[in-house]
Amino acid sequence: MRVTLDGLPERVTIYEVGPRDGLQNEKTVVPVADKAEFVGRLAEAGLETIETTSFVHPKWVPQLADAEELLAALPGPAASPRPVLVPNERGLDRALAHGVTEIAVFGSATESFARRNLNRTIEESLAMFAPVVERARAEGLWVRAYVSMACGDPWEGEVPIEQVVSVAGRMMDMGCSQLSLGDTIGVGTPGQVTALIEAMVEAGIGADRLAVHFHDTYGQALANTLAALRAGVTVVDASAGGIGGCPYAESATGNLATEDLVWMLHGLGIETGVDLDRLAETSRWMAGRLGRPSPSRVVQALNPKESE
Amino acid sequence: MRVTLDGLPERVTIYEVGPRDGLQNEKTVVPVADKAEFVGRLAEAGLETIETTSFVHPKWVPQLADAEELLAALPGPAASPRPVLVPNERGLDRALAHGVTEIAVFGSATESFARRNLNRTIEESLAMFAPVVERARAEGLWVRAYVSMACGDPWEGEVPIEQVVSVAGRMMDMGCSQLSLGDTIGVGTPGQVTALIEAMVEAGIGADRLAVHFHDTYGQALANTLAALRAGVTVVDASAGGIGGCPYAESATGNLATEDLVWMLHGLGIETGVDLDRLAETSRWMAGRLGRPSPSRVVQALNPKESE
Repeated sequence: MRVTLDGLPERVTIYEVGPRDGLQNEKTVVPVADKAEFVGRLAEAGLETIETTSFVHPKWVPQLADAEELLAALPGPAASPRPVLVPNERGLDRALAHGVTEIAVFGSATESFARRNLNRTIEESLAMFAPVVERARAEGLWVRAYVSMACGDPWEGEVPIEQVVSVAGRMMDMGCSQLSLGDTIGVGTPGQVTALIEAMVEAGIGADRLAVHFHDTYGQALANTLAALRAGVTVVDASAGGIGGCPYAESATGNLATEDLVWMLHGLGIETGVDLDRLAETSRWMAGRLGRPSPSRVVQALNPKESE
Repeated sequence: MRVTLDGLPERVTIYEVGPRDGLQNEKTVVPVADKAEFVGRLAEAGLETIETTSFVHPKWVPQLADAEELLAALPGPAASPRPVLVPNERGLDRALAHGVTEIAVFGSATESFARRNLNRTIEESLAMFAPVVERARAEGLWVRAYVSMACGDPWEGEVPIEQVVSVAGRMMDMGCSQLSLGDTIGVGTPGQVTALIEAMVEAGIGADRLAVHFHDTYGQALANTLAALRAGVTVVDASAGGIGGCPYAESATGNLATEDLVWMLHGLGIETGVDLDRLAETSRWMAGRLGRPSPSRVVQALNPKESE
């Protein structure tokens, strides 16, 4: 039953991160042909923005070492927005050489995660991003900024909202077009999410430039998404089938599953352009490639026989 | 980080259904001594209302065939509210003989489920409940009414809100004190939940007499709970560890996990009286008894090593 709710948008753009954030965090390394098929099937299911891969050094993320091959195996970038993650200038060179037109840079709201993930202080990481964003903009590229650990940090605990606003503001001032607020460890709850978005808007980063990126580690991702939508956000990151980020257990999920998100949005009468059955079929196929059941509740529920 | 959100209550009562709705839907039959320990540990973790068992005929629910033994093994009913499910007058006799002071009756919003679950039409089921509720009230018992299939039905599809209101009104008119709206198959979304609650209030069943009972089959339970809280509901059903109702797959969940609910409520600064660590420890113990990992995200996340 489709029943709307006051204060929600008519349409939401799903920023699909399965091929990048999902596969990057799976143990199984998926062959490049399967990745290309995955991206193609996601696009056919109606996902209009798909973060495809990352130009990070293969030493750090062996799962995405085939970035060049994958891009070569896909139809041209004009077909639909297919951002790739770019960590530094060397990554930007590689992206430009392959005709990429959208990139994302990945910052951290906390010193602990900046040190562990980027091997830098926050200041040093911002200094690394600045020329990347500047050159990308000069080349006419669209640039997204991620701010990770926006709701909490495994080493530091609570992350003050001012700190997230500060890092986000610096990245947006460089010339990024969109800011994705990432609850990387999934600890946030709806009040915190609302406060975070309100603080961003107050700092001059309008809701039309915001996206949210929730991990479902504590089961809060969809409730947090609802809060974000009510606060004016209309771009939501999700991973097909909920793949990626299984730091704990086989059955634990990382990213919010795109299917679970689509179920809620369509139930709320919000357009996404996604064909849910086709998407779930794609996720079941990928779960088979990964050799484990899909953590998406909707994928399981829509296909009882195969998941038994 | 505790951050409130406008329009939410300061305190929520969790109506714990793990021992009844949870264990009733698990394949494994748990020994009565373990059930008694389960109820005791849930109470020690701060859960003040625990639906303990059901006086349904053992032929239909063999998992709860030990209802009398379990009640005898627990401390007296004065300790804390411990409703039991009572399907008919015979069940009420058994409940009264064991000093039960709170009961619940279980109705259906749809003819299909009434026929399959109660072997009756809706009219016939209401005729069966009426003398149960009347006698229970005359004996001074507190009575809860469940209305199941309130958001959708596997055979009938969408369930018109008027139909849910009609059945709910009839049950409340009999003298029930609380109405639990059950999305038994987990298909509802937040707009539908809000509309359903508003329709109940309009029909004279105030939000202070409502509870919500969500299954997480499509991952919507917590987002729906948030919508219900905003609509004025302050009683939420949940099952410790998310046990129960696994019609599809090992990893699929039935009931909303109490831990996932508590995580959100505490994050929103809402009091529950629950000690989350103690509760999660209890659920891990019960998962061991059931021989499968807990489907609760929070239980998995709080104890990475044991759940690996």
